[in-house]
Amino acid sequence: MPLLSKEQIQSFLHTEFPQTTVIVESLNEKGATVRQTINDQHLRPGGTVSGPVLMAVADVAMYVALLGEIGIVPLAVTTNLSINFLRKPAADSDIVAHCQLLKVGKRLAVGEVSLFSEGQADPVAHVVCTYAIPSV
Amino acid sequence: MPLLSKEQIQSFLHTEFPQTTVIVESLNEKGATVRQTINDQHLRPGGTVSGPVLMAVADVAMYVALLGEIGIVPLAVTTNLSINFLRKPAADSDIVAHCQLLKVGKRLAVGEVSLFSEGQADPVAHVVCTYAIPSV
Amino acid sequence: MPLLSKEQIQSFLHTEFPQTTVIVESLNEKGATVRQTINDQHLRPGGTVSGPVLMAVADVAMYVALLGEIGIVPLAVTTNLSINFLRKPAADSDIVAHCQLLKVGKRLAVGEVSLFSEGQADPVAHVVCTYAIPSV
Amino acid sequence: MPLLSKEQIQSFLHTEFPQTTVIVESLNEKGATVRQTINDQHLRPGGTVSGPVLMAVADVAMYVALLGEIGIVPLAVTTNLSINFLRKPAADSDIVAHCQLLKVGKRLAVGEVSLFSEGQADPVAHVVCTYAIPSV
Repeated sequence: MPLLSKEQIQSFLHTEFPQTTVIVESLNEKGATVRQTINDQHLRPGGTVSGPVLMAVADVAMYVALLGEIGIVPLAVTTNLSINFLRKPAADSDIVAHCQLLKVGKRLAVGEVSLFSEGQADPVAHVVCTYAIPSV
Repeated sequence: MPLLSKEQIQSFLHTEFPQTTVIVESLNEKGATVRQTINDQHLRPGGTVSGPVLMAVADVAMYVALLGEIGIVPLAVTTNLSINFLRKPAADSDIVAHCQLLKVGKRLAVGEVSLFSEGQADPVAHVVCTYAIPSV
Repeated sequence: MPLLSKEQIQSFLHTEFPQTTVIVESLNEKGATVRQTINDQHLRPGGTVSGPVLMAVADVAMYVALLGEIGIVPLAVTTNLSINFLRKPAADSDIVAHCQLLKVGKRLAVGEVSLFSEGQADPVAHVVCTYAIPSV
Repeated sequence: MPLLSKEQIQSFLHTEFPQTTVIVESLNEKGATVRQTINDQHLRPGGTVSGPVLMAVADVAMYVALLGEIGIVPLAVTTNLSINFLRKPAADSDIVAHCQLLKVGKRLAVGEVSLFSEGQADPVAHVVCTYAIPSV
């Protein structure tokens, strides 16, 4: 069971990362779901969500899942992120990201994230992400 | 439903890649499971399965899943493979790999593969793999 | 020798991607250097350049290098981008990115990008990126 | 300057990894070059060097470069390896791999490796690799 509630994590994100507008949807065993409402500033020419926005959402999804497992660790940092762009995201749908943690070690955590334009069956992107966890 | 049976793909592997000893366990919608029996030649010092063996099994799992979707395409080639090593594999257990295809386009296919030492709950490695599919 | 001048590519970027503020510094044989001036909107808490900004700069560096090699191809799209975060970027320095193309095929191009906080010897991040090139 | 000579590292590899046939060619500041002589057991159908062989050579190149920087650390392990296959390797040429370390931290080291069929100008594959370094 996650150590923290989604409200605790949402509150932590608001305080520590005031610029993020990602919403924590749910926490579950070794995973999390987050949502990014899409507006014009997230789009690129051609009417699609930009790659850096997808990366940012995936990174937050991973961070939320990790905080749910190990508690508030503000200094955890992304060391590697690999993203595959699979399909063109819809311009007028939220991005919903599901993270599943693959490993939570003492020093490294690895997770994968599938990103969807809400309401579509197939993912728009897939991310694998590694976080370094600071020594206590 | 896969285009080919597991027996057809196993037979193709035996003919085209006679050196592989990977066994096709099952095919399913956009996915496949394969098995590698482990013997001394797959191990490295410390009594664990070597990284290149895990990579090779993941690559075959992806290839099998892809053939199941698009039929026999001998010239499909791996263009990118990214592997995260998560836990030390057991020296005396088979490696079982589950591939799920994330995208099968006309020119590129992307899949992810989770690798397990048989009987363990947590994966020993996770792979994301891209294949280029030749033009007809 | 690049097919296009840096002015031609800068002009194309301004027209097609009006929101980007990346500056094309130089084009060379199978490579390019670009610069991102950093201001508050590129920073995250802790006073460092955010990961998605680094990703965006690397992606533009790769695109510029590719356009220099193959000419204006508006529909080339990123299919995979893998970033390693190596050191904390300075909050008050420009980000300078050097891209070197590793392969320019008919259908795929692969490049690597080293990103620096200007004036520092060691890279803040390293990216490997694949673009799919549309069929003519 | 590397902490160890290439003879010291070659001797360590022979003792600890007796099955490897990789030859340490040179060590330099934050880098190393290694060579794999290719014979039939490294080839796959179509007369080309197999992907897992390329991965294994890149992994050793990274390990050698790392040992040159930090001394003999037998427990350093690969945590992530991402390989792009760029061109078909020649069946009858050695594989030569050049590793350049991008970061050597206390806990993680990251390097990139370019692999060549000897005598060709363009790389056959490119690898980015992360090692975890055990705490002392």
